[in-house]
Amino acid sequence: MDQSSRNAYEQLIESTRAVSLLRSTSALLHWDQQTMMPKGGLAYRSKQLTQIETLAHQKFTDPKIGEWIERCEQTPELLADPLDPKAVNLREWRRLYDRATRLPKTLVEQMSQTASLGRGAWGEARRESNFSHFQPWIEKWVDLLRQQAQCLGWPTGGEPWDALAEEYEPGCTAQQIESVFAPLKDRLVNLVGKLTGCSKQPEDRFGSIELPIDQQRRFVKFIAEQIGFDFDRGRLDEALHPFCSSTHCHDVRLTTRFGSGGFPDALASTMHEAGHGIYNQSLPPQHMDTPMGGPVSLGIHESQSRLWENQVGRSRTFWTWCLPRLRHYFGTAVDELDLDSIDNALHRVHPDLIRVEADELTYNLHIMIRFDLERALLNGDLEAREIPGAWNELYAKLLQVKVPDDARGCLQDMHWSAGAMGYFPTYTLGNLYAAQFFEQAQKELPDLDNQIEQGQFDPLRTWLQRNIHSQGMRYRAADLCQQVTGRPLSAEPLLSYLERTYLPLYE
Amino acid sequence: MDQSSRNAYEQLIESTRAVSLLRSTSALLHWDQQTMMPKGGLAYRSKQLTQIETLAHQKFTDPKIGEWIERCEQTPELLADPLDPKAVNLREWRRLYDRATRLPKTLVEQMSQTASLGRGAWGEARRESNFSHFQPWIEKWVDLLRQQAQCLGWPTGGEPWDALAEEYEPGCTAQQIESVFAPLKDRLVNLVGKLTGCSKQPEDRFGSIELPIDQQRRFVKFIAEQIGFDFDRGRLDEALHPFCSSTHCHDVRLTTRFGSGGFPDALASTMHEAGHGIYNQSLPPQHMDTPMGGPVSLGIHESQSRLWENQVGRSRTFWTWCLPRLRHYFGTAVDELDLDSIDNALHRVHPDLIRVEADELTYNLHIMIRFDLERALLNGDLEAREIPGAWNELYAKLLQVKVPDDARGCLQDMHWSAGAMGYFPTYTLGNLYAAQFFEQAQKELPDLDNQIEQGQFDPLRTWLQRNIHSQGMRYRAADLCQQVTGRPLSAEPLLSYLERTYLPLYE
Repeated sequence: MDQSSRNAYEQLIESTRAVSLLRSTSALLHWDQQTMMPKGGLAYRSKQLTQIETLAHQKFTDPKIGEWIERCEQTPELLADPLDPKAVNLREWRRLYDRATRLPKTLVEQMSQTASLGRGAWGEARRESNFSHFQPWIEKWVDLLRQQAQCLGWPTGGEPWDALAEEYEPGCTAQQIESVFAPLKDRLVNLVGKLTGCSKQPEDRFGSIELPIDQQRRFVKFIAEQIGFDFDRGRLDEALHPFCSSTHCHDVRLTTRFGSGGFPDALASTMHEAGHGIYNQSLPPQHMDTPMGGPVSLGIHESQSRLWENQVGRSRTFWTWCLPRLRHYFGTAVDELDLDSIDNALHRVHPDLIRVEADELTYNLHIMIRFDLERALLNGDLEAREIPGAWNELYAKLLQVKVPDDARGCLQDMHWSAGAMGYFPTYTLGNLYAAQFFEQAQKELPDLDNQIEQGQFDPLRTWLQRNIHSQGMRYRAADLCQQVTGRPLSAEPLLSYLERTYLPLYE
Repeated sequence: MDQSSRNAYEQLIESTRAVSLLRSTSALLHWDQQTMMPKGGLAYRSKQLTQIETLAHQKFTDPKIGEWIERCEQTPELLADPLDPKAVNLREWRRLYDRATRLPKTLVEQMSQTASLGRGAWGEARRESNFSHFQPWIEKWVDLLRQQAQCLGWPTGGEPWDALAEEYEPGCTAQQIESVFAPLKDRLVNLVGKLTGCSKQPEDRFGSIELPIDQQRRFVKFIAEQIGFDFDRGRLDEALHPFCSSTHCHDVRLTTRFGSGGFPDALASTMHEAGHGIYNQSLPPQHMDTPMGGPVSLGIHESQSRLWENQVGRSRTFWTWCLPRLRHYFGTAVDELDLDSIDNALHRVHPDLIRVEADELTYNLHIMIRFDLERALLNGDLEAREIPGAWNELYAKLLQVKVPDDARGCLQDMHWSAGAMGYFPTYTLGNLYAAQFFEQAQKELPDLDNQIEQGQFDPLRTWLQRNIHSQGMRYRAADLCQQVTGRPLSAEPLLSYLERTYLPLYE
């Protein structure tokens, strides 16, 4: 490699590290806002965030960055092995630089304004449960997002939705998703129908037990620690909407909630966020602050949270180990619980209206409805004014529920009001990847069930770290799946896990 | 005012606001480091801080800033009234710009390096209780600080120490301090001698009562709220060394500790930091992010914390109101306490070795010793190697204690290891200003004692806000004192408060 290419690559490393450093500060400001900041700090915090994010954006969109990328792209040695960290970094810098520079400034400003006004309008429309007040904002967003997609471009044979999803799930197209969602949808609707039609339905004694918050707090922290979250490099706090913030792999912050969902919700929420956190803590530190040191995609990130939350956290093997610990922490308050009652409580299926309250099965149907609608909107196959009708029809068809009003229908989620289309499917991709990865782990670690029953989570965590976390951003999600499990993403592992787990509990 | 001067002033406002915004982010990073950050985050945090602080420094030392200041200084209208916010801002921008640009880059680098290595060397020397290992660093610092003082300059008739103190207490000189410290020293030594010689010594039942930390936490928060700290614009956490962080007046964060000092220490520490916090919250919001919207000096800041901690928090009037609340919160655990036993516990005098553990009286003697020594070092009247001898001699003379080793002697404080000379006196200036302000408040609010007995702290807080907080940085400390109390700073109010308070409790 000649000196000038080497210099260009090193300049890129240095400049983009500075950008990551700024973004890590911005991540801390966000975390603080959602966990610690007194309410009086809000207006100023938004100024602080705007300043840091503008600095980061300016630094990354500097034309010199583009020149250096180009210079490197003309250097065959840097691209020879697409899995080499340098080639991975170049691939990602190119993707990110193009996305950051291809949008005209006026469009960016319009989108930023529409995001802040749109959120306000959505809040009001939801309070009044009246979609027609929000309709002009959806129209505006569809227009802006189609413009955005045009500027960014999408693969041949694809559609505008792909250009937007590239932000969250690089390399993923609507068509690919469709090919996995379609078989999943049919069998899932069938399975849900079968389960809800059973005369014997699981009870939920677990969820209705009231436990002191202080003790809950200590217990969920204990579990997060046991499954492998490192509290020397992280912490756990509370937030209204739990999330995992990662400024970098040595400072990862989880949040959970102790709310109306009771203790099972707090525990599931903690294990979910700890799954995200373990991923972040296990990213390759030598590549920190470069794309190679980052996570693959939102879908893969979600697979790590769902795997610990569902495949582990709802399993009878896990509870064989956990129940005695629960008894130790909570004493007589949990006397009436046994493995059966917990198993029942954690596997109830109840098709209903609200996505964020949905069970493990029907959750995916909520996602598919949103995917179909946003795709149709962007393709021009659906008008904004038709959303409530289409929404209610799909809920009747897939979930057999009647939507009583827009607030509990098409106005329930904030995402679209901020222009986030192409995002929802990453949740179900997470469920799919989680099931496929876990199935593979079970094959490669024949003793896994037994280890979990003994509270030995290290073999599983190490397997995930070796196969997924330590790879950073080397592979695209689809390639990682192929690499780790030997086959492309399929609906089969998730469906087989769900059928195997749920059917025996029903009659 | 012509357009170009107006432009220059507005450019200054805009640019320095951006600098303040960056500094507020840096303040949050510092706060987080000391309260929330997991230990794994340390190395990266120092990178984040360096980045933000470098950006702020670069922005503020841009030659354009100097040109704009000069342009404004040539505009008589801007300087006509030195108490006008614009003139105040210009005065401060000039001071800060000169201080930031007058030091050669090599000196700044040497100082920054010496600070980080010096702290390490100090820590080690203290562990080994061996001053000789630290001596070269003091020599280095005296050399660097004298160079710094030469670059910055000091008033005619003054000395190098003045140039350094200007950082913490603008406009204050060693001579001025000397003229107040000298009478204070004599009468304080005399008073301490009288008190410690008494046969009747106050008991400390209060300090030895053990109270649950959870309840302490709730109670100190209640007190901070009662005296006027606004929790909608602030919070209270824990830190090893309590401090008050202020990113801006709408987000002020206190810390306190629940440690070996027992409950009285936790309460005093909370009221102290709340005093700082109330000052920060009451700064004029319309001048936020400009010098005019900042505090006067460290000495004035400390007066606000000491006033609430001592003049209010140790007074019998305060405890007349507080004791029933204490009983309400802690129940039978505090049964044996009455006003007399609390009064006794809060007014014990015990000359001893360690500054940070000193009582309200002898604390000032610890400060004076440090002031004399650092002044002598900078004037060349004392060699670094002579420090332990001089230190021990002064402790024997002023505090009648024998220093057993360097760790409990001249190595106890970190300040000098980081090059902070000119800082210590601000603590005693705080005590002096607190007493003088409080005496004035008592004159102007004849019902003050009665109000405090009723738990009505608003009149006092409003008086402080009107006279001090809302003035921002309009006045220099000495002028503010003259303005508020009608006379220059004097040792009399503090001495008279101490004599009046302490003598009756002893025999």
